[in-house]
Amino acid sequence: MPLSEFELIDRFFRGCGTQRSDVPLGVGDDAALIECPPDRQLVAAIDTLVEGVHFPAGSPAASVGHRALAVNLSDLAAMGAEPGWALLALTLPRADERWLEEFSRGLAALAREFGVALVGGDTTCGPLCVTIQILGSVERGTALTRSGAAAGEALYVSGTPGDAAAGLQLEQSRLELADAHSARYLRDRFLFPAPRVALGRRLRAYASACIDVSDGLLGDAGKLARASGCGVELDYEMLPVSLALAAAVGPERARGLALTGGDDYELLFSVPPSRTDDLARDLPADEWRYTRIGTLRGESGAVVTRNGSVIDFSHYGFDHFASVR
Amino acid sequence: MPLSEFELIDRFFRGCGTQRSDVPLGVGDDAALIECPPDRQLVAAIDTLVEGVHFPAGSPAASVGHRALAVNLSDLAAMGAEPGWALLALTLPRADERWLEEFSRGLAALAREFGVALVGGDTTCGPLCVTIQILGSVERGTALTRSGAAAGEALYVSGTPGDAAAGLQLEQSRLELADAHSARYLRDRFLFPAPRVALGRRLRAYASACIDVSDGLLGDAGKLARASGCGVELDYEMLPVSLALAAAVGPERARGLALTGGDDYELLFSVPPSRTDDLARDLPADEWRYTRIGTLRGESGAVVTRNGSVIDFSHYGFDHFASVR
Repeated sequence: MPLSEFELIDRFFRGCGTQRSDVPLGVGDDAALIECPPDRQLVAAIDTLVEGVHFPAGSPAASVGHRALAVNLSDLAAMGAEPGWALLALTLPRADERWLEEFSRGLAALAREFGVALVGGDTTCGPLCVTIQILGSVERGTALTRSGAAAGEALYVSGTPGDAAAGLQLEQSRLELADAHSARYLRDRFLFPAPRVALGRRLRAYASACIDVSDGLLGDAGKLARASGCGVELDYEMLPVSLALAAAVGPERARGLALTGGDDYELLFSVPPSRTDDLARDLPADEWRYTRIGTLRGESGAVVTRNGSVIDFSHYGFDHFASVR
Repeated sequence: MPLSEFELIDRFFRGCGTQRSDVPLGVGDDAALIECPPDRQLVAAIDTLVEGVHFPAGSPAASVGHRALAVNLSDLAAMGAEPGWALLALTLPRADERWLEEFSRGLAALAREFGVALVGGDTTCGPLCVTIQILGSVERGTALTRSGAAAGEALYVSGTPGDAAAGLQLEQSRLELADAHSARYLRDRFLFPAPRVALGRRLRAYASACIDVSDGLLGDAGKLARASGCGVELDYEMLPVSLALAAAVGPERARGLALTGGDDYELLFSVPPSRTDDLARDLPADEWRYTRIGTLRGESGAVVTRNGSVIDFSHYGFDHFASVR
């Protein structure tokens, strides 16, 4: 006998994630009730993953559950917000209990890690597609945005972008790598990205602007610069590249993937010259894992320089409706 | 040249709906910022419409935009909440400008009618699927839920359920109706449902429980009764049926559709005997368009009686994963 929508919600999603005392009414009614956090602003984002577009058909269900929440947590991280509550809209071709079990386990584990309560949702029948809407909060007036950067400021990125793009290629057998340890590391960077929520919270005291790197570092740097009314210059030699990525594709292609790969969910942020020393002192770069990669400039556009010369990158980030992917 | 995701959002969704002063940051950053309304609770719901499941392929885009928001507004109506903000996750096979224009017009018109600001969203490429997440608020402790009803209370429904189901059949050419005026009326009840937000707000002072009728009146009455730990008896002869529906399918089939049709987005609510006179006085039934259709009872389950005898209905509401539809 097939699982009904009500049994499905009851079994896999009621009580999913953290139990929070500020949720008087969660999953199961027409809507959820949440206590408004006093003296804070709400922060809201929504993101969809479609099978065959954002993840390969047949991806591990735990990864789909993890990523659906992770991409939303990454949006909150980029605002410097504290995550709180999520709603899930899950469209499935059929109610496959094993898949649902794994999916909800992946989702619940990440939700618990970040203190998120799943407070509502909707399950429907159709092509596999997962939308999560996340809510969080931030102390009034302290949210990071894309638009606060200015020419002359330093640009930083967390982690080692490009890893996830190589991990996806490994998942799709478009790339081979003999070293099993490095291959596992890269695949996990695609399958189980780690949202930089703690870093985003701390950056509120130092950064002038922030964006999460989801569509490719170069394209997202261009978005931050454009929103701030300036341009940006990235230094090719300063791009942080993981040893695993360099081993997989060589150091040159590694930097290409770091610039354009997508799916990184790292933070890209600008810091005024007056705050860079404080940042380095209070959040040591080797502990918090970020790297200075460039500078905001007056001239618009995003360029990459190598030994002082501009190099050409025609693929400016991943765009769902004008893309090769 | 195809429209990019960023141009698409800019052109069709920036500033969509009502401009609200409590939205310091709307569409265009990693997340939106919303001022928390003081002394109120947040109310959050999410609902998805999938082409070919919730609306026929080739439905008017304005109707898809309207319905995607209406089904969410109906969830807030059932809680007695005041709508405020919405996020849109739109998955499209391609960026068809005419379709988007019409879709956003249908969405924006309803958003303005209910004072809703579209504060964020995500557009992705894939099979047509629309998820809206809505946020609203309610005075603390006054929200209506499904679980407050008790045996002996009266059960009411707003409007004339069954119309939308007949309208869908007309849209799909599974039903014919010579009278063009009635046919238009029924189609519009499916294509452009009117969320009962004002009624829901007023019912907080009278109703003990409330649910919106989306999956069929009988099934949803069963859900309200079950959540309240009781059962329900509906009186077949009291079911309100529109003249258009009776003309389209005859009075007997009309009551069958009213009980099991789905897509009505009316409110079903219980009122304690001590409050029914006040309800009738303060919210006249002919003005607010609601009808008493049954009674909550101690024995569990949902039954329909006709002249004192129980009649059998085996199809208890629409369930996405165990359904004939």
